[in-house]
Amino acid sequence: MKASPSHHMESLAAHGVWSPVLVPLQPDLGIDSERFIAQAQWLLAQGCHGLALFGTTSEANSFSVAERKALLEEVVEAGISPERLMVGTGCCALTDSVELTRHAVDTGCRRVLMLPPFYYKGMSDEGLFQSFAEVVERVGNPDLRVFLYHFPRLSGVPVTEGLIALLVDAFPEVVAGVKDSSGEWSNTRMMLDRFPRLAIFPGSETFLLDGLRAGGAGCITATSNVNASGARAVFDAWSAGHEDADTRQTAATTIRRAIDRHPGIPAQKFLIARYRNDPAWRTVRPPMTALADEAGHDLLDALSATEFDGARLAIH
Amino acid sequence: MKASPSHHMESLAAHGVWSPVLVPLQPDLGIDSERFIAQAQWLLAQGCHGLALFGTTSEANSFSVAERKALLEEVVEAGISPERLMVGTGCCALTDSVELTRHAVDTGCRRVLMLPPFYYKGMSDEGLFQSFAEVVERVGNPDLRVFLYHFPRLSGVPVTEGLIALLVDAFPEVVAGVKDSSGEWSNTRMMLDRFPRLAIFPGSETFLLDGLRAGGAGCITATSNVNASGARAVFDAWSAGHEDADTRQTAATTIRRAIDRHPGIPAQKFLIARYRNDPAWRTVRPPMTALADEAGHDLLDALSATEFDGARLAIH
Repeated sequence: MKASPSHHMESLAAHGVWSPVLVPLQPDLGIDSERFIAQAQWLLAQGCHGLALFGTTSEANSFSVAERKALLEEVVEAGISPERLMVGTGCCALTDSVELTRHAVDTGCRRVLMLPPFYYKGMSDEGLFQSFAEVVERVGNPDLRVFLYHFPRLSGVPVTEGLIALLVDAFPEVVAGVKDSSGEWSNTRMMLDRFPRLAIFPGSETFLLDGLRAGGAGCITATSNVNASGARAVFDAWSAGHEDADTRQTAATTIRRAIDRHPGIPAQKFLIARYRNDPAWRTVRPPMTALADEAGHDLLDALSATEFDGARLAIH
Repeated sequence: MKASPSHHMESLAAHGVWSPVLVPLQPDLGIDSERFIAQAQWLLAQGCHGLALFGTTSEANSFSVAERKALLEEVVEAGISPERLMVGTGCCALTDSVELTRHAVDTGCRRVLMLPPFYYKGMSDEGLFQSFAEVVERVGNPDLRVFLYHFPRLSGVPVTEGLIALLVDAFPEVVAGVKDSSGEWSNTRMMLDRFPRLAIFPGSETFLLDGLRAGGAGCITATSNVNASGARAVFDAWSAGHEDADTRQTAATTIRRAIDRHPGIPAQKFLIARYRNDPAWRTVRPPMTALADEAGHDLLDALSATEFDGARLAIH
């Protein structure tokens, strides 16, 4: 498909509800691409504007470069449009980040979500800038659009205001946005104020409505794997100016909070396994452990007091 | 070379002063294997009992699996005995850890130094155990000896007493030791008391003498890249029962503390570049940055008040 320039630009201005996709596993802990593609298609059918492959929720850092490349190729071959994808490519090793970013763009996926290199802590903004700059320059493709991934609780390496400023100055066409998984609205607010040209995505739907009202792009939220429709309902109510946007937000937030009492990835895999009647979905790759039955029942109890609708998880 | 069983066992009981080896870089940030091999040979000539490749000091996590495998092969081909090597193989991705560990053993290097998978934080001991267990079982080679790498300040994932106990129980022949880079003597002391059959290496020469006196194996210490002889002098004085062991320890500790006021890897690369008159040595891979001239001069000033002897760094 040849897109017109204006359509092209529009499609790159990522917005709305994006879902990082959980990665189902084979019994040998390899990626189950068939179930993955089904989940990706289901998420789009549930109303997600786009999908993030290989963020935290995808257990991405537990997979090798080769495993990540192979899955992306299968996803695109299955007919999921690269325009709907944002591919996680930020690794500890500069050479891995270059290889994955180049591969994403070569596969037609112009949007990448990049963690900073996250083993060495306390690195300077200048050093982190050099790392991102090496990736952008080595890939050397003007089609590339980078979304910076700020998740200090897990990475231990914040994407600071100073680092973003260095990158925006050096690569104004390439740096397109930020996923802010700090969980702190004050930080998201700072990014919105300081970088109005960037697409700022809070990393949780709990900030979806606040973000949209403040000029944010939407959200990239893990729990859309089990409640995409709830987040989409917030977005649609806001888009249409409906007065029930706040009600929709409260419903989505209540569900999110029930899930947040458990480890997010095992908890959502548990829910999908349960409502799809597909126990294979429970498997996680070490160092994670599958949600124990008792915790799963606690989760189901908590969700029963919300608007959560497990029947939606079925794939027909 | 076919070793006798008794010699074989003895050589596996790693002890003494082990040096993680700094990785010099080409201008394109690729590994400079020629300078690396020269540094490795120099370290052995300076008295190191063995070398750790691809720990923190080697900037290991900034290199891809392919880069790490290629360098190890060159090192062994250059004639450095695999018996003198301990190879860092612990990555975030289970499949990468398996690949590197299998490669190390296949290359004749039975000792590996393994970080836990370090992206996801707050994982249970059981989940971390499963990760190590998968590596040991998939490699499936009884020759393998695993040294666990505890460096919570950088990894964010501690190797706890409980995790070590699970691993020692499950793999008593395989789990051989711990590198404790916590920097806390109380933790090293706990490991020595709790796991007397393991080779416990403090991650700094500042604890070398205390460790040896308490039954420790020696140390695996970054700053042996510029002061191997100082650490070796402590070890030799202790071995011989000489009364100047404490004096040697104080001298080594004083040098270490001067270096510790700067980022360790750039600082040591600066010193080697300076005393070898080889500016190429200053290069680091992002996200690190080379030591600035001013900081380098501060470091030289501080070292001039110690027993540090830069002339030793020359390679003839």
